[in-house]
Amino acid sequence: MEQYDVVIIGGGPAGLTAGIYTSRARLNTLILETYLSPSQITLTDMIENYPGFPEGIKGMNLLQLMRKQAQNFGTEFKMGTVTGIEKKGKEWNIYLDDKSVISTLSVIVATGAVAKELGVPGEKEYKGRGVSYCAVCDAPFFKDKEVAVIGGGDTAVEEALYLTKFASKVYLIHRRDQLRATKILQERVKSNTMVEIIWNSVVTEIKGKEKVNSIVLKNVKTEEKKELNVDGVFIFIGLIPQTDFIKGIVELDENGYIKVDKEMRTTVEGIFAAGDCIQKNLRQVVTACGDGATAGYSAQLYVEDLKGTGYKYR
Amino acid sequence: MEQYDVVIIGGGPAGLTAGIYTSRARLNTLILETYLSPSQITLTDMIENYPGFPEGIKGMNLLQLMRKQAQNFGTEFKMGTVTGIEKKGKEWNIYLDDKSVISTLSVIVATGAVAKELGVPGEKEYKGRGVSYCAVCDAPFFKDKEVAVIGGGDTAVEEALYLTKFASKVYLIHRRDQLRATKILQERVKSNTMVEIIWNSVVTEIKGKEKVNSIVLKNVKTEEKKELNVDGVFIFIGLIPQTDFIKGIVELDENGYIKVDKEMRTTVEGIFAAGDCIQKNLRQVVTACGDGATAGYSAQLYVEDLKGTGYKYR
Repeated sequence: MEQYDVVIIGGGPAGLTAGIYTSRARLNTLILETYLSPSQITLTDMIENYPGFPEGIKGMNLLQLMRKQAQNFGTEFKMGTVTGIEKKGKEWNIYLDDKSVISTLSVIVATGAVAKELGVPGEKEYKGRGVSYCAVCDAPFFKDKEVAVIGGGDTAVEEALYLTKFASKVYLIHRRDQLRATKILQERVKSNTMVEIIWNSVVTEIKGKEKVNSIVLKNVKTEEKKELNVDGVFIFIGLIPQTDFIKGIVELDENGYIKVDKEMRTTVEGIFAAGDCIQKNLRQVVTACGDGATAGYSAQLYVEDLKGTGYKYR
Repeated sequence: MEQYDVVIIGGGPAGLTAGIYTSRARLNTLILETYLSPSQITLTDMIENYPGFPEGIKGMNLLQLMRKQAQNFGTEFKMGTVTGIEKKGKEWNIYLDDKSVISTLSVIVATGAVAKELGVPGEKEYKGRGVSYCAVCDAPFFKDKEVAVIGGGDTAVEEALYLTKFASKVYLIHRRDQLRATKILQERVKSNTMVEIIWNSVVTEIKGKEKVNSIVLKNVKTEEKKELNVDGVFIFIGLIPQTDFIKGIVELDENGYIKVDKEMRTTVEGIFAAGDCIQKNLRQVVTACGDGATAGYSAQLYVEDLKGTGYKYR
């Protein structure tokens, strides 16, 4: 059985940064990656708010730089989906879909979260080319353009308001006849002349050529269809933290996000978490990296203490 | 009087990242810089654990990239040392040493912490060229070399043990005849054959040419002096958070670090904090940046709520 000091589940910015830190601290580190749920970073064409790249950097390129950096320090990588985790004495057994088992002194969960998708034609095709799941990331690219926001909850309304600072017009598309968002947000969005709310409507298709040109809406009451010209479609119908495999082991919040303290410790000793899969306000590349470093350092303190080779675990 | 949405005190990685976020959110943002206490990032020659730079990057270069990025989004900069902060209605007045006053809806404190210095000849001269205040940052540069660690507390002992993974020999220089560090750490460092503890001794001089070559030690009991050949001197006699000016306004911990919640909110509404000046375990560039983004976002939510223009403050 393979033996590690640290196994990091997830190869996005949080996991890679944790790997940079634990490998650099001379701990045997393995990052488990999966093709099935790529990091959110790969969904954004250009990232312009990761500090250190004033001209912006392509999400995929930044990810590759981080991966190379972890490899330089000795982080190992393996493809595999985790099917279970089990405590064995001081160690954790990690079970993979290929039936292999990995033993490790500590685990860092950095599996991220994926945006819920509409599941309509064109959505996958235009991801990063007009279809976005993150206004903070992408709004400035839609300066003086018309965009549609899909959803009716707090996030959708907040992001619609945020987009009015950039876009010339924001359509808020909601499938019901009233918003789920809290009252004050409802008041604000309704009084904002730059936002037009389209009620009782769902998106049935996203159309375009190089980039998004329009969406097809269906009124759920009248069944009437119409096409709306927009350059961007921001979909905020919820996020799905990738934490199913750890449910029942560490404590999750009501939305499935992992509860951690400031040092990225979960409710179970030896298991740490970082990045989009944890409970927090702002999910960004740089916050994932910050979390990752902290989780790596906490795992290091924990492992060194288990081994009795230096650090005490605080 | 100058009026801002956000005034960020401190132009290191935390402050610059906060500026990137608040400026990008279209908030009028000013960063106050001072020459007197430069960011810790400038003390490290090469930073190899900031994610995205697999070949490493010079601290000063990384800082300049972040500064350019903040400027690109419209962050303004001003030189000045803050002498006082006072609430005026919804706003805060910030008083500077040049007698000017700035008005702002929110404040982000990112003033960092400075390592206590020994105050001996050669120390300033060889900073970043053998003299270090951060083993996590610099230990790998001393692979198979001999280094001295100055101090006797938890940090000094932990860092001495950490350095044994890289250096061929670690001298731990302490001015008393016993360590202040907790028992378990004392046991570990005493049983580690790579560490030689030199008791009752203080450093009186750091010598070298291009880089550090030796230190001069004085035994405080016998007054005897001797020269010790080392390539590195790691000084861990304490950190000083730069928080004096905010004492009595926000709550500090017993060491002077600012208490914040996970969203980087201090105990006072409208004042946020990020980076090395806050209470936390791991002080690194990437964690400062993560904090800075979070503080910027929290300040944004707060300011937008004050203005009634979008977000609710949670």
